[in-house]
Amino acid sequence: MSNQPPSHGEIDLDAFRQSGYQLIDWIADYFANPEQYPVLAQVEPGDISAQLPTSPPTKAESLPDIIADFEQIIMPGMTHWNHPNFFAYFSSTGSAPGVLGELLSAALNINGMLWRTSPAATELETVTLDWLGQMLALPSDWEGVIMDGASMSNMIAIATAREALNLQIRVKGMAGRTDLPRLRLYISEQSHSSVEKGALTLGIGQENVIKIATDENFALDPTALKTAIEADLAAGYRPFFVCGTIGTTSSTAIDPLAAIADLAEQYQLWFHVDGAYGGTTALLPEMRHHFEGAERADSMVVNPHKWMFTPIDLSVLYTRHPATLKQAFSILPEYLRTAEGDAETVKNYMDYGLQLGRRFRALKLWMVIRAFGQEGLAARVREHIRLAQQFAGWVDESADFELLAPTPMSNVCFRACPPSYQAQGEAALDQLNAQLLDAVNATGQIFISHTKLRGQYSLRLAVGNIRTTNSHVESAWQLLNDTLHQIKSLT
Amino acid sequence: MSNQPPSHGEIDLDAFRQSGYQLIDWIADYFANPEQYPVLAQVEPGDISAQLPTSPPTKAESLPDIIADFEQIIMPGMTHWNHPNFFAYFSSTGSAPGVLGELLSAALNINGMLWRTSPAATELETVTLDWLGQMLALPSDWEGVIMDGASMSNMIAIATAREALNLQIRVKGMAGRTDLPRLRLYISEQSHSSVEKGALTLGIGQENVIKIATDENFALDPTALKTAIEADLAAGYRPFFVCGTIGTTSSTAIDPLAAIADLAEQYQLWFHVDGAYGGTTALLPEMRHHFEGAERADSMVVNPHKWMFTPIDLSVLYTRHPATLKQAFSILPEYLRTAEGDAETVKNYMDYGLQLGRRFRALKLWMVIRAFGQEGLAARVREHIRLAQQFAGWVDESADFELLAPTPMSNVCFRACPPSYQAQGEAALDQLNAQLLDAVNATGQIFISHTKLRGQYSLRLAVGNIRTTNSHVESAWQLLNDTLHQIKSLT
Repeated sequence: MSNQPPSHGEIDLDAFRQSGYQLIDWIADYFANPEQYPVLAQVEPGDISAQLPTSPPTKAESLPDIIADFEQIIMPGMTHWNHPNFFAYFSSTGSAPGVLGELLSAALNINGMLWRTSPAATELETVTLDWLGQMLALPSDWEGVIMDGASMSNMIAIATAREALNLQIRVKGMAGRTDLPRLRLYISEQSHSSVEKGALTLGIGQENVIKIATDENFALDPTALKTAIEADLAAGYRPFFVCGTIGTTSSTAIDPLAAIADLAEQYQLWFHVDGAYGGTTALLPEMRHHFEGAERADSMVVNPHKWMFTPIDLSVLYTRHPATLKQAFSILPEYLRTAEGDAETVKNYMDYGLQLGRRFRALKLWMVIRAFGQEGLAARVREHIRLAQQFAGWVDESADFELLAPTPMSNVCFRACPPSYQAQGEAALDQLNAQLLDAVNATGQIFISHTKLRGQYSLRLAVGNIRTTNSHVESAWQLLNDTLHQIKSLT
Repeated sequence: MSNQPPSHGEIDLDAFRQSGYQLIDWIADYFANPEQYPVLAQVEPGDISAQLPTSPPTKAESLPDIIADFEQIIMPGMTHWNHPNFFAYFSSTGSAPGVLGELLSAALNINGMLWRTSPAATELETVTLDWLGQMLALPSDWEGVIMDGASMSNMIAIATAREALNLQIRVKGMAGRTDLPRLRLYISEQSHSSVEKGALTLGIGQENVIKIATDENFALDPTALKTAIEADLAAGYRPFFVCGTIGTTSSTAIDPLAAIADLAEQYQLWFHVDGAYGGTTALLPEMRHHFEGAERADSMVVNPHKWMFTPIDLSVLYTRHPATLKQAFSILPEYLRTAEGDAETVKNYMDYGLQLGRRFRALKLWMVIRAFGQEGLAARVREHIRLAQQFAGWVDESADFELLAPTPMSNVCFRACPPSYQAQGEAALDQLNAQLLDAVNATGQIFISHTKLRGQYSLRLAVGNIRTTNSHVESAWQLLNDTLHQIKSLT
């Protein structure tokens, strides 16, 4: 290794090798003991940036120096999604095989926009998504495309539905046209915000995203959906898309997909299933009854980066209408034409979405599926569901806590409602639970998040990290009880 | 290591460690000698998928088995973007420090949607983009946001411009409204297809993307732009956005940004600069005169994953109107509310784009900037420009080849035009060059791509890989001459 860094070319590869070994060791140690860190970063806004230089370095710095700063400056500001006590949002999780997949992807550094720009990337994507479809018992004629996340998958689904209307929106746009109906789409009041964001991006407009009421289980009410569609038709709107969710974000509610499919058929709506989180549960035969009706969908999203041990990002959009998806998005400038593309003997994935640049994401998913096997993936998801349901049982039996929603998957919605507070009304309970959330998160021992259900402030404990075991869920329950006790004794 | 893989939890971490070392060694060897592989994969459609099982594995498989398949099945189907003779498209390039950054990102596996979900990710993004802005001499009041690629950055820029119109498109949408003008936006006929794709996604419509004629250097003609705007205004359209490109995809033409800025000001258009590729040249003081007028832009994209040694994907959208960008995209469901977000003491990057899920991309850019230093990055980009201009000089001096465009950056547009063919007309020259392209690419020694310029089939040789040196460009020139000679002697 020379002391003078070269002004051209790559860095010294022996230096890369040494730092690479060091980081592999660091990651193995980190994965062995993430509990050495607080799960939620215990820093104040600006704490990290205050330690960083305000100007970029003029000269090259050594990898060991950079890695030392990573450990000393960056790490204290990380919230640890790898921590077994990360129970917030959806507790998504990577895995060691997925990390190695990302390492190889980064090294290969291809852009899989065209088959030609790496045939193996295109073909592995097709094969791996076919495997995934089999594992989830999806219809065999569906085709998948890897997207970065569910925000994109949901938007692309709506855009494809818009294209299927044959209103020439691709060519003529929507603004200032007198020949277009007002378009409306339907989600439930519990659907994920990304569906609404997709709709507003596409120029459908937030007020045309109709949020259908839900039943006592927070599942879309098909009667209310039918009423809304009829009312909109009577008022001259053009309903074109409905989204059913399998595992909503707040409470993992499961919409009645078969009933939605019936209405979608009756009113000729595009039927999209948001399974970003819950779609993974189709790995389990005992969960597949929830998916009845999904086989009639026009599109469905599932996120292996959420609950299938694949590092962020990797979402999959399946559709039975890949030709319509291509029609919505394909643009072929001369500089991207190839003989095999013109002959249509290959799939060029750039044609199936917004993004021209495509990382080699299939590689990590392929490695994860192989490293765990279908049975291993299913066993882990099944265990997470068991852990959550066990926690829900403790809540249910407790005099100080109550469930606010059913627990069909691995997320528990609950709140503290000690007898001494019950007479004080909902506002006091909301405040108590917000206080409890802040207090347990401030310990650095667990990280949970919240939502509101029927206006009530609800705590959420989502199990989904690959390292979470019985004892972690037990400790979380203990901490919640202890902290509640402290709060009560202070007031 | 047990023989029985565990049915719960992570894989054996000793196995991870051993395979991790193995892959670090493999990558170091690969980077030391990418020329052991053909640059363009020499396989036929279906060759790779035919070697993969049609069903997923039921049981877990070992990492060494998976890695062996990677080497034996996947690698032969890779096109090598790391190869120093990759001259196609824009020869983007990662680097060893960037690979280590991706490795750490994958291991940390955070979603940086909120400040809270990893304060260091948010703050490092802000600091690193501030560094990058300084390095590119951008106005200090611009704020940057990391996007996945320029397709997204360009679309988000158009969407922000749409929001700035104050036509309530976010809320009311565009379809079926009688109170909206027809919106038009302006690019040059040489602008990247992603701007058009962004516009059609947003519901603006392809026919409202007006492609302005270019001058003899393939740069946008401001007189033609003015004429088009005036004509559209007279016809009742509402012009709202213009994109100038610094380094177009076909020929790296540089649009007259100051003249476009004048017109944007005069007609109150949002002025966006597409510097996805060419923006990087602002690292070089001697190139900054090309950017005159960019400082008056409303937004600008630059892709460190293209020519700044950062692995795909990482694009940066800078804007002077971050509040408008936030207004266009922010949606805050209860389950994503935090005290610090409500108090606006932090930036939650999910508010600044379509995607809720955000990988920790800033880390690799920070590591790349530090590992090379500002001077090291500039020296490499400068050398690539020198290599391309040297190649352009050889073309210019050759009796058998000619340049089809100026070479202001690191991409050469040229064609074979041997005296013996010149009498046969354009169609024969197009055919000759297509044949030459296929022939050199089929050798596996170099990979170049093509475009059309003024209807003429043009070869493109783009320098941009970190490993490309003088001798690679010389060999490419030799191969092109030898292959042309062979084709000529066959006919």
